[in-house]
Amino acid sequence: MLFDVFTLFPEVFPTYLESSILKRAQENKLLEVQLHNIRDWATDKHHTTDDTPYGGGGGMVMKPEPVFSAVETVLGKQPDCPVILLSPQGKLFDQEKARSLCELPHLALICGRYEGFDERIREHLVTNEISIGDYVLSGGELPALILIEAVTRLIPGALGDPTGAADDSFEMGLLEYPQYTRPPAFRGWQVPEILQSGDHAAILRWRHQQALLRTIVRRPDLLDNFDLSPADLIFLEQVVKESGIPESDSIINLIKNRKD
Amino acid sequence: MLFDVFTLFPEVFPTYLESSILKRAQENKLLEVQLHNIRDWATDKHHTTDDTPYGGGGGMVMKPEPVFSAVETVLGKQPDCPVILLSPQGKLFDQEKARSLCELPHLALICGRYEGFDERIREHLVTNEISIGDYVLSGGELPALILIEAVTRLIPGALGDPTGAADDSFEMGLLEYPQYTRPPAFRGWQVPEILQSGDHAAILRWRHQQALLRTIVRRPDLLDNFDLSPADLIFLEQVVKESGIPESDSIINLIKNRKD
Repeated sequence: MLFDVFTLFPEVFPTYLESSILKRAQENKLLEVQLHNIRDWATDKHHTTDDTPYGGGGGMVMKPEPVFSAVETVLGKQPDCPVILLSPQGKLFDQEKARSLCELPHLALICGRYEGFDERIREHLVTNEISIGDYVLSGGELPALILIEAVTRLIPGALGDPTGAADDSFEMGLLEYPQYTRPPAFRGWQVPEILQSGDHAAILRWRHQQALLRTIVRRPDLLDNFDLSPADLIFLEQVVKESGIPESDSIINLIKNRKD
Repeated sequence: MLFDVFTLFPEVFPTYLESSILKRAQENKLLEVQLHNIRDWATDKHHTTDDTPYGGGGGMVMKPEPVFSAVETVLGKQPDCPVILLSPQGKLFDQEKARSLCELPHLALICGRYEGFDERIREHLVTNEISIGDYVLSGGELPALILIEAVTRLIPGALGDPTGAADDSFEMGLLEYPQYTRPPAFRGWQVPEILQSGDHAAILRWRHQQALLRTIVRRPDLLDNFDLSPADLIFLEQVVKESGIPESDSIINLIKNRKD
Protein backbone atom coordinates (compact mmCIF):
# COMPACT_ATOMS: atom_id res chain seq x y z
CA MET A 1 0.00 0.00 0.00
CA LEU A 2 1.34 3.40 -1.01
CA PHE A 3 0.73 6.64 0.87
CA ASP A 4 1.71 9.93 -0.75
CA VAL A 5 1.86 12.47 2.06
CA PHE A 6 1.86 16.21 1.31
CA THR A 7 3.04 18.32 4.24
CA LEU A 8 5.02 21.39 5.26
CA PHE A 9 6.78 19.34 7.96
CA PRO A 10 8.09 16.14 6.33
CA GLU A 11 10.82 15.99 8.97
CA VAL A 12 8.41 14.91 11.72
CA PHE A 13 7.46 11.65 9.95
CA PRO A 14 10.57 9.43 9.61
CA THR A 15 11.19 8.78 13.33
CA TYR A 16 7.73 7.34 13.81
CA LEU A 17 7.65 5.56 10.45
CA GLU A 18 10.87 3.79 11.45
CA SER A 19 9.40 2.38 14.66
CA SER A 20 7.65 -0.91 15.39
CA ILE A 21 5.03 -2.24 12.99
CA LEU A 22 5.34 0.58 10.47
CA LYS A 23 9.03 -0.17 10.08
CA ARG A 24 8.36 -3.89 9.66
CA ALA A 25 5.56 -3.29 7.17
CA GLN A 26 7.90 -1.17 5.04
CA GLU A 27 10.68 -3.78 5.24
CA ASN A 28 8.17 -6.42 4.12
CA LYS A 29 7.04 -4.25 1.18
CA LEU A 30 3.51 -4.04 2.57
CA LEU A 31 3.75 -0.29 3.12
CA GLU A 32 5.43 2.56 1.29
CA VAL A 33 5.25 6.18 2.41
CA GLN A 34 6.41 8.96 0.07
CA LEU A 35 6.80 12.34 1.75
CA HIS A 36 6.39 15.51 -0.31
CA ASN A 37 7.16 18.99 1.00
CA ILE A 38 4.47 21.36 -0.23
CA ARG A 39 7.00 24.18 0.11
CA ASP A 40 9.01 22.71 -2.79
CA TRP A 41 6.17 23.78 -5.07
CA ALA A 42 6.04 27.41 -3.91
CA THR A 43 7.37 29.43 -6.81
CA ASP A 44 8.33 32.76 -5.25
CA LYS A 45 11.73 33.60 -3.83
CA HIS A 46 10.68 33.04 -0.21
CA HIS A 47 8.80 29.77 -0.91
CA THR A 48 5.64 31.24 0.55
CA THR A 49 2.86 28.71 1.19
CA ASP A 50 0.46 30.84 3.24
CA ASP A 51 -1.03 34.30 3.15
CA THR A 52 -3.49 36.44 5.13
CA PRO A 53 -7.20 35.64 4.86
CA TYR A 54 -9.59 37.65 2.72
CA GLY A 55 -12.00 39.42 5.02
CA GLY A 56 -9.51 39.72 7.85
CA GLY A 57 -9.12 37.73 11.04
CA GLY A 58 -6.28 35.94 12.79
CA GLY A 59 -4.12 33.16 11.44
CA MET A 60 -2.75 32.46 8.00
CA VAL A 61 -4.37 30.51 5.18
CA MET A 62 -2.67 27.87 2.98
CA LYS A 63 -2.41 29.24 -0.57
CA PRO A 64 -3.98 27.19 -3.34
CA GLU A 65 -1.15 27.20 -5.93
CA PRO A 66 1.56 25.23 -4.10
CA VAL A 67 -0.91 22.57 -2.91
CA PHE A 68 -2.43 22.09 -6.37
CA SER A 69 1.04 21.99 -7.96
CA ALA A 70 2.38 19.46 -5.45
CA VAL A 71 -0.55 17.07 -5.75
CA GLU A 72 -0.88 17.35 -9.54
CA THR A 73 2.85 16.93 -10.16
CA VAL A 74 3.05 13.79 -8.03
CA LEU A 75 -0.34 12.23 -8.87
CA GLY A 76 -1.17 13.71 -12.27
CA LYS A 77 -4.15 15.89 -13.16
CA GLN A 78 -6.58 13.01 -12.60
CA PRO A 79 -5.31 11.21 -9.48
CA ASP A 80 -6.14 7.48 -9.43
CA CYS A 81 -6.58 7.52 -5.66
CA PRO A 82 -8.57 9.38 -3.01
CA VAL A 83 -7.00 12.74 -2.13
CA ILE A 84 -7.71 13.01 1.59
CA LEU A 85 -7.48 16.23 3.55
CA LEU A 86 -6.85 15.73 7.27
CA SER A 87 -9.07 18.40 8.80
CA PRO A 88 -11.25 18.84 11.90
CA GLN A 89 -14.11 19.58 9.49
CA GLY A 90 -14.01 16.11 7.96
CA LYS A 91 -15.96 12.93 8.62
CA LEU A 92 -14.86 11.26 11.84
CA PHE A 93 -12.30 8.52 11.30
CA ASP A 94 -13.13 5.17 12.88
CA GLN A 95 -12.20 1.51 12.59
CA GLU A 96 -14.78 0.91 9.86
CA LYS A 97 -13.25 3.72 7.79
CA ALA A 98 -9.78 2.23 8.42
CA ARG A 99 -11.02 -1.11 7.07
CA SER A 100 -12.46 0.46 3.93
CA LEU A 101 -9.30 2.50 3.24
CA CYS A 102 -7.22 -0.65 3.73
CA GLU A 103 -8.87 -2.13 0.62
CA LEU A 104 -7.23 0.53 -1.56
CA PRO A 105 -3.71 0.26 -2.99
CA HIS A 106 -2.94 3.97 -2.91
CA LEU A 107 -3.95 6.99 -0.81
CA ALA A 108 -2.87 10.63 -0.87
CA LEU A 109 -2.94 12.56 2.39
CA ILE A 110 -2.74 16.34 2.63
CA CYS A 111 -1.64 17.73 6.00
CA GLY A 112 -2.39 21.36 6.50
CA ARG A 113 -2.03 24.00 9.06
CA TYR A 114 -5.34 24.05 10.81
CA GLU A 115 -5.61 27.83 10.74
CA GLY A 116 -7.15 27.09 7.38
CA PHE A 117 -6.89 25.96 3.78
CA ASP A 118 -7.99 28.13 0.92
CA GLU A 119 -11.47 26.81 0.25
CA ARG A 120 -10.68 26.16 -3.42
CA ILE A 121 -8.36 23.33 -2.33
CA ARG A 122 -11.34 21.68 -0.62
CA GLU A 123 -13.68 22.26 -3.50
CA HIS A 124 -11.54 21.36 -6.49
CA LEU A 125 -8.63 19.13 -5.39
CA VAL A 126 -9.63 17.12 -2.34
CA THR A 127 -11.93 14.10 -2.67
CA ASN A 128 -12.42 13.28 1.04
CA GLU A 129 -12.00 15.13 4.33
CA ILE A 130 -11.23 13.07 7.41
CA SER A 131 -11.07 14.18 11.04
CA ILE A 132 -9.48 11.96 13.67
CA GLY A 133 -11.49 13.57 16.48
CA ASP A 134 -13.23 16.67 17.79
CA TYR A 135 -10.19 18.59 18.96
CA VAL A 136 -7.96 21.27 17.45
CA LEU A 137 -4.35 20.52 16.52
CA SER A 138 -1.71 22.64 14.84
CA GLY A 139 -1.39 20.49 11.75
CA GLY A 140 -2.39 17.32 9.96
CA GLU A 141 0.88 15.48 10.58
CA LEU A 142 -0.17 13.52 13.69
CA PRO A 143 -3.57 12.74 12.14
CA ALA A 144 -1.79 11.42 9.02
CA LEU A 145 0.40 9.15 11.15
CA ILE A 146 -2.68 7.95 13.06
CA LEU A 147 -4.43 7.12 9.80
CA ILE A 148 -1.37 5.38 8.34
CA GLU A 149 -0.90 3.28 11.48
CA ALA A 150 -4.57 2.31 11.87
CA VAL A 151 -4.79 1.29 8.20
CA THR A 152 -1.42 -0.48 8.08
CA ARG A 153 -2.32 -2.68 11.08
CA LEU A 154 -5.15 -4.11 8.96
CA ILE A 155 -2.98 -5.08 5.98
CA PRO A 156 -2.76 -8.89 6.06
CA GLY A 157 0.67 -9.85 7.40
CA ALA A 158 1.51 -6.44 8.85
CA LEU A 159 1.14 -7.60 12.46
CA GLY A 160 3.59 -10.23 13.60
CA ASP A 161 0.79 -12.16 15.31
CA PRO A 162 -1.82 -13.15 12.70
CA THR A 163 -4.64 -13.07 15.30
CA GLY A 164 -3.39 -9.84 16.85
CA ALA A 165 -5.87 -7.42 15.31
CA ALA A 166 -8.96 -9.60 15.59
CA ASP A 167 -9.85 -9.13 19.26
CA ASP A 168 -8.70 -5.58 19.77
CA SER A 169 -11.24 -2.99 20.81
CA PHE A 170 -13.68 -2.18 17.97
CA GLU A 171 -12.64 -5.15 15.86
CA MET A 172 -15.43 -7.15 17.53
CA GLY A 173 -17.61 -4.03 17.83
CA LEU A 174 -17.10 -4.03 21.62
CA LEU A 175 -14.45 -2.65 23.92
CA GLU A 176 -11.85 -5.26 24.82
CA TYR A 177 -12.29 -7.51 27.88
CA PRO A 178 -9.89 -7.21 30.87
CA GLN A 179 -6.48 -8.81 30.36
CA TYR A 180 -4.20 -10.22 33.06
CA THR A 181 -0.67 -11.57 33.05
CA ARG A 182 1.77 -12.78 35.70
CA PRO A 183 2.10 -12.51 38.64
CA PRO A 184 -1.17 -14.21 39.68
CA ALA A 185 -1.20 -12.03 42.81
CA PHE A 186 0.23 -8.51 42.77
CA ARG A 187 0.02 -6.54 46.05
CA GLY A 188 -2.81 -8.87 47.03
CA TRP A 189 -4.80 -8.20 43.84
CA GLN A 190 -5.63 -11.56 42.27
CA VAL A 191 -6.09 -12.65 38.68
CA PRO A 192 -9.70 -13.90 38.34
CA GLU A 193 -9.86 -17.65 39.02
CA ILE A 194 -11.69 -18.44 35.83
CA LEU A 195 -8.71 -17.30 33.73
CA GLN A 196 -6.55 -19.87 35.52
CA SER A 197 -9.15 -22.66 35.23
CA GLY A 198 -8.11 -24.05 31.86
CA ASP A 199 -11.81 -24.24 30.92
CA HIS A 200 -11.62 -22.61 27.50
CA ALA A 201 -15.33 -22.43 26.83
CA ALA A 202 -15.90 -20.74 30.21
CA ILE A 203 -13.03 -18.33 29.53
CA LEU A 204 -14.45 -17.37 26.14
CA ARG A 205 -17.86 -16.79 27.70
CA TRP A 206 -16.41 -14.72 30.58
CA ARG A 207 -14.38 -12.57 28.19
CA HIS A 208 -17.33 -11.92 25.93
CA GLN A 209 -19.51 -10.96 28.91
CA GLN A 210 -16.80 -8.69 30.32
CA ALA A 211 -16.45 -6.99 26.93
CA LEU A 212 -20.22 -6.48 26.84
CA LEU A 213 -20.26 -5.06 30.36
CA ARG A 214 -17.38 -2.71 29.77
CA THR A 215 -18.98 -1.45 26.58
CA ILE A 216 -22.40 -0.88 28.10
CA VAL A 217 -20.92 1.01 31.05
CA ARG A 218 -18.32 3.08 29.18
CA ARG A 219 -19.52 3.42 25.62
CA PRO A 220 -23.18 2.37 25.28
CA ASP A 221 -23.25 4.21 21.92
CA LEU A 222 -21.11 1.44 20.41
CA LEU A 223 -23.90 -1.10 21.02
CA ASP A 224 -26.04 0.65 18.39
CA ASN A 225 -24.07 -1.23 15.76
CA PHE A 226 -23.63 -4.51 17.63
CA ASP A 227 -25.87 -7.55 17.25
CA LEU A 228 -26.67 -8.67 20.78
CA SER A 229 -27.53 -12.39 20.93
CA PRO A 230 -30.46 -13.62 23.06
CA ALA A 231 -27.90 -14.92 25.58
CA ASP A 232 -26.23 -11.47 25.66
CA LEU A 233 -29.55 -9.83 26.43
CA ILE A 234 -30.39 -12.21 29.27
CA PHE A 235 -26.94 -11.77 30.76
CA LEU A 236 -27.00 -7.99 30.54
CA GLU A 237 -30.46 -7.60 31.99
CA GLN A 238 -29.56 -9.80 34.95
CA VAL A 239 -26.25 -8.10 35.68
CA VAL A 240 -27.62 -4.61 35.33
CA LYS A 241 -30.53 -5.35 37.67
CA GLU A 242 -28.20 -6.77 40.29
CA SER A 243 -25.68 -3.95 39.99
CA GLY A 244 -27.87 -1.18 41.37
CA ILE A 245 -25.66 1.33 39.51
CA PRO A 246 -27.21 4.75 38.93
CA GLU A 247 -27.48 4.16 35.18
CA SER A 248 -29.22 0.79 35.57
CA ASP A 249 -32.67 2.04 34.62
CA SER A 250 -31.56 3.68 31.41
CA ILE A 251 -29.42 0.69 30.54
CA ILE A 252 -32.34 -1.71 31.08
CA ASN A 253 -34.47 0.50 28.87
CA LEU A 254 -31.83 0.43 26.20
CA ILE A 255 -31.66 -3.35 26.37
CA LYS A 256 -35.44 -3.71 26.29
CA ASN A 257 -35.71 -1.45 23.26
CA ARG A 258 -33.30 -3.69 21.41
CA LYS A 259 -35.35 -6.79 22.22
CA ASP A 260 -38.55 -5.26 20.87
CA MET B 1 2.53 22.83 32.41
CA LEU B 2 4.37 19.58 33.06
CA PHE B 3 3.67 16.28 31.31
CA ASP B 4 5.27 13.11 32.67
CA VAL B 5 5.03 10.56 29.86
CA PHE B 6 5.53 6.84 30.55
CA THR B 7 6.24 4.82 27.42
CA LEU B 8 8.22 1.93 25.96
CA PHE B 9 9.16 4.10 22.96
CA PRO B 10 10.47 7.42 24.29
CA GLU B 11 12.55 7.79 21.12
CA VAL B 12 9.50 8.63 18.99
CA PHE B 13 8.68 11.80 20.94
CA PRO B 14 11.57 14.30 20.60
CA THR B 15 11.29 14.95 16.85
CA TYR B 16 7.70 16.06 17.17
CA LEU B 17 8.19 17.87 20.46
CA GLU B 18 10.94 19.91 18.79
CA SER B 19 8.67 21.15 16.02
CA SER B 20 6.52 24.26 15.70
CA ILE B 21 4.37 25.36 18.63
CA LEU B 22 5.49 22.62 21.01
CA LYS B 23 9.09 23.70 20.59
CA ARG B 24 8.19 27.35 21.17
CA ALA B 25 6.07 26.53 24.23
CA GLN B 26 9.00 24.66 25.76
CA GLU B 27 11.41 27.49 24.96
CA ASN B 28 8.99 29.92 26.62
CA LYS B 29 8.73 27.68 29.72
CA LEU B 30 5.02 27.15 29.16
CA LEU B 31 5.47 23.41 28.52
CA GLU B 32 7.77 20.77 29.91
CA VAL B 33 7.67 17.12 28.82
CA GLN B 34 9.55 14.49 30.82
CA LEU B 35 9.89 11.13 29.07
CA HIS B 36 10.22 7.97 31.15
CA ASN B 37 11.01 4.57 29.66
CA ILE B 38 8.88 1.98 31.45
CA ARG B 39 11.52 -0.61 30.51
CA ASP B 40 13.97 1.06 32.91
CA TRP B 41 11.80 -0.23 35.77
CA ALA B 42 11.75 -3.87 34.64
CA THR B 43 13.87 -5.72 37.14
CA ASP B 44 14.75 -8.96 35.35
CA LYS B 45 17.82 -9.50 33.22
CA HIS B 46 15.96 -9.08 29.93
CA HIS B 47 13.98 -6.00 31.06
CA THR B 48 10.72 -7.77 30.33
CA THR B 49 7.66 -5.51 30.33
CA ASP B 50 5.07 -7.87 28.85
CA ASP B 51 3.96 -11.45 29.24
CA THR B 52 1.34 -13.84 27.82
CA PRO B 53 -2.28 -13.36 28.90
CA TYR B 54 -3.96 -15.56 31.51
CA GLY B 55 -6.66 -17.57 29.80
CA GLY B 56 -4.82 -17.68 26.47
CA GLY B 57 -5.33 -15.69 23.29
CA GLY B 58 -3.11 -13.68 20.96
CA GLY B 59 -0.96 -10.70 21.83
CA MET B 60 1.05 -9.84 24.90
CA VAL B 61 -0.07 -8.01 28.03
CA MET B 62 1.82 -5.21 29.82
CA LYS B 63 2.98 -6.50 33.21
CA PRO B 64 1.89 -4.56 36.28
CA GLU B 65 5.19 -4.29 38.19
CA PRO B 66 7.25 -2.09 35.82
CA VAL B 67 4.36 0.31 35.23
CA PHE B 68 3.59 0.70 38.95
CA SER B 69 7.30 1.13 39.73
CA ALA B 70 7.82 3.72 37.01
CA VAL B 71 4.83 5.84 37.98
CA GLU B 72 5.36 5.58 41.74
CA THR B 73 9.07 6.34 41.52
CA VAL B 74 8.51 9.46 39.44
CA LEU B 75 5.28 10.72 41.01
CA GLY B 76 5.34 9.22 44.50
CA LYS B 77 2.84 6.77 45.99
CA GLN B 78 0.10 9.41 46.01
CA PRO B 79 0.48 11.29 42.71
CA ASP B 80 -0.69 14.90 42.88
CA CYS B 81 -1.93 14.80 39.29
CA PRO B 82 -4.27 12.74 37.12
CA VAL B 83 -2.64 9.53 35.88
CA ILE B 84 -4.11 9.15 32.42
CA LEU B 85 -4.02 5.94 30.42
CA LEU B 86 -4.28 6.45 26.67
CA SER B 87 -6.53 3.59 25.64
CA PRO B 88 -9.27 2.90 23.10
CA GLN B 89 -11.45 1.94 26.06
CA GLY B 90 -11.35 5.43 27.56
CA LYS B 91 -13.68 8.39 27.38
CA LEU B 92 -13.46 10.13 24.00
CA PHE B 93 -11.11 13.10 24.00
CA ASP B 94 -12.56 16.35 22.67
CA GLN B 95 -11.93 20.08 22.78
CA GLU B 96 -13.89 20.46 26.01
CA LYS B 97 -11.70 17.85 27.68
CA ALA B 98 -8.60 19.63 26.32
CA ARG B 99 -9.82 22.84 27.93
CA SER B 100 -10.38 21.20 31.31
CA LEU B 101 -6.97 19.46 31.26
CA CYS B 102 -5.36 22.77 30.35
CA GLU B 103 -6.42 24.11 33.77
CA LEU B 104 -4.10 21.64 35.52
CA PRO B 105 -0.39 22.27 36.12
CA HIS B 106 0.68 18.63 35.83
CA LEU B 107 -0.48 15.52 34.00
CA ALA B 108 0.91 11.99 33.78
CA LEU B 109 0.31 10.03 30.59
CA ILE B 110 0.80 6.27 30.27
CA CYS B 111 1.24 4.96 26.74
CA GLY B 112 0.74 1.26 26.39
CA ARG B 113 0.75 -1.36 23.78
CA TYR B 114 -2.84 -1.71 22.78
CA GLU B 115 -2.74 -5.51 22.88
CA GLY B 116 -3.57 -4.88 26.51
CA PHE B 117 -2.63 -3.69 29.97
CA ASP B 118 -2.86 -5.92 33.00
CA GLU B 119 -6.22 -4.91 34.43
CA ARG B 120 -4.71 -4.15 37.85
CA ILE B 121 -2.94 -1.13 36.28
CA ARG B 122 -6.36 0.21 35.29
CA GLU B 123 -7.96 -0.54 38.62
CA HIS B 124 -5.30 0.60 41.07
CA LEU B 125 -2.92 3.06 39.37
CA VAL B 126 -4.75 4.92 36.64
CA THR B 127 -7.20 7.72 37.49
CA ASN B 128 -8.55 8.46 33.98
CA GLU B 129 -8.68 6.63 30.66
CA ILE B 130 -8.81 8.70 27.52
CA SER B 131 -9.33 7.58 23.94
CA ILE B 132 -8.57 9.90 21.03
CA GLY B 133 -10.98 8.07 18.71
CA ASP B 134 -12.68 4.81 17.79
CA TYR B 135 -9.81 3.17 15.96
CA VAL B 136 -7.07 0.74 16.92
CA LEU B 137 -3.43 1.81 17.03
CA SER B 138 -0.30 -0.04 18.07
CA GLY B 139 0.48 2.16 21.05
CA GLY B 140 -0.38 5.25 23.04
CA GLU B 141 2.48 7.38 21.75
CA LEU B 142 0.62 9.20 18.95
CA PRO B 143 -2.42 9.69 21.22
CA ALA B 144 -0.14 11.20 23.89
CA LEU B 145 1.32 13.64 21.34
CA ILE B 146 -2.20 14.53 20.18
CA LEU B 147 -3.27 15.24 23.76
CA ILE B 148 -0.12 17.26 24.52
CA GLU B 149 -0.55 19.35 21.37
CA ALA B 150 -4.29 19.98 21.81
CA VAL B 151 -3.79 21.02 25.45
CA THR B 152 -0.66 23.09 24.84
CA ARG B 153 -2.38 25.16 22.13
CA LEU B 154 -4.80 26.35 24.83
CA ILE B 155 -2.13 27.55 27.26
CA PRO B 156 -2.28 31.37 27.18
CA GLY B 157 0.67 32.61 25.14
CA ALA B 158 1.47 29.27 23.49
CA LEU B 159 0.22 30.36 20.08
CA GLY B 160 2.11 33.19 18.47
CA ASP B 161 -1.14 34.85 17.45
CA PRO B 162 -3.23 35.60 20.56
CA THR B 163 -6.52 35.24 18.65
CA GLY B 164 -5.37 32.15 16.80
CA ALA B 165 -7.20 29.53 18.82
CA ALA B 166 -10.44 31.41 19.26
CA ASP B 167 -12.08 30.83 15.89
CA ASP B 168 -10.74 27.38 15.11
CA SER B 169 -13.18 24.55 14.63
CA PHE B 170 -14.86 23.56 17.94
CA GLU B 171 -13.65 26.65 19.77
CA MET B 172 -16.90 28.35 18.80
CA GLY B 173 -18.80 25.04 18.95
CA LEU B 174 -19.13 25.07 15.15
CA LEU B 175 -16.94 23.91 12.29
CA GLU B 176 -14.86 26.73 10.86
CA TYR B 177 -16.15 28.90 8.02
CA PRO B 178 -14.45 28.79 4.59
CA GLN B 179 -11.19 30.71 4.32
CA TYR B 180 -9.69 32.29 1.22
CA THR B 181 -6.39 33.95 0.45
CA ARG B 182 -4.70 35.36 -2.64
CA PRO B 183 -5.02 35.09 -5.61
CA PRO B 184 -8.57 36.46 -5.88
CA ALA B 185 -9.10 34.25 -8.94
CA PHE B 186 -7.37 30.89 -9.27
CA ARG B 187 -8.10 28.90 -12.43
CA GLY B 188 -11.27 30.92 -12.74
CA TRP B 189 -12.46 30.12 -9.21
CA GLN B 190 -13.22 33.39 -7.44
CA VAL B 191 -12.98 34.48 -3.82
CA PRO B 192 -16.53 35.40 -2.68
CA GLU B 193 -17.17 39.09 -3.27
CA ILE B 194 -18.32 39.76 0.25
CA LEU B 195 -14.85 38.92 1.63
CA GLN B 196 -13.39 41.65 -0.58
CA SER B 197 -16.09 44.20 0.32
CA GLY B 198 -14.46 45.71 3.40
CA ASP B 199 -17.86 45.57 5.15
CA HIS B 200 -16.79 43.99 8.41
CA ALA B 201 -20.25 43.49 9.88
CA ALA B 202 -21.38 41.73 6.71
CA ILE B 203 -18.22 39.60 6.68
CA LEU B 204 -18.77 38.55 10.30
CA ARG B 205 -22.38 37.62 9.53
CA TRP B 206 -21.40 35.67 6.39
CA ARG B 207 -18.71 33.75 8.24
CA HIS B 208 -21.02 32.85 11.10
CA GLN B 209 -23.70 31.68 8.66
CA GLN B 210 -21.19 29.65 6.65
CA ALA B 211 -19.95 28.01 9.86
CA LEU B 212 -23.54 27.16 10.78
CA LEU B 213 -24.24 25.73 7.35
CA ARG B 214 -21.09 23.64 7.25
CA THR B 215 -21.82 22.27 10.70
CA ILE B 216 -25.43 21.40 9.99
CA VAL B 217 -24.49 19.61 6.77
CA ARG B 218 -21.36 17.79 7.95
CA ARG B 219 -21.70 17.36 11.71
CA PRO B 220 -25.25 18.12 12.86
CA ASP B 221 -24.42 16.29 16.13
CA LEU B 222 -22.27 19.26 17.15
CA LEU B 223 -25.34 21.53 17.23
CA ASP B 224 -26.67 19.62 20.24
CA ASN B 225 -24.35 21.69 22.39
CA PHE B 226 -24.63 24.98 20.52
CA ASP B 227 -26.99 27.82 21.41
CA LEU B 228 -28.65 28.85 18.17
CA SER B 229 -29.82 32.47 18.25
CA PRO B 230 -33.24 33.42 16.84
CA ALA B 231 -31.43 34.91 13.83
CA ASP B 232 -29.55 31.64 13.35
CA LEU B 233 -32.80 29.70 13.32
CA ILE B 234 -34.45 31.97 10.77
CA PHE B 235 -31.39 31.82 8.53
CA LEU B 236 -31.07 28.04 8.71
CA GLU B 237 -34.71 27.36 8.07
CA GLN B 238 -34.69 29.59 5.02
CA VAL B 239 -31.50 28.17 3.54
CA VAL B 240 -32.45 24.59 4.18
CA LYS B 241 -35.87 25.04 2.55
CA GLU B 242 -34.30 26.64 -0.51
CA SER B 243 -31.55 24.05 -0.81
CA GLY B 244 -33.72 21.08 -1.69
CA ILE B 245 -30.95 18.81 -0.37
CA PRO B 246 -32.00 15.25 0.53
CA GLU B 247 -31.50 15.87 4.26
CA SER B 248 -33.58 19.06 4.28
CA ASP B 249 -36.62 17.51 5.98
CA SER B 250 -34.65 16.04 8.85
CA ILE B 251 -32.67 19.25 9.23
CA ILE B 252 -35.84 21.34 9.37
CA ASN B 253 -37.21 18.98 12.00
CA LEU B 254 -34.05 19.35 14.00
CA ILE B 255 -34.27 23.12 13.81
CA LYS B 256 -37.97 23.12 14.75
CA ASN B 257 -37.34 20.90 17.76
CA ARG B 258 -34.80 23.40 19.01
CA LYS B 259 -37.26 26.27 18.66
CA ASP B 260 -39.95 24.51 20.71
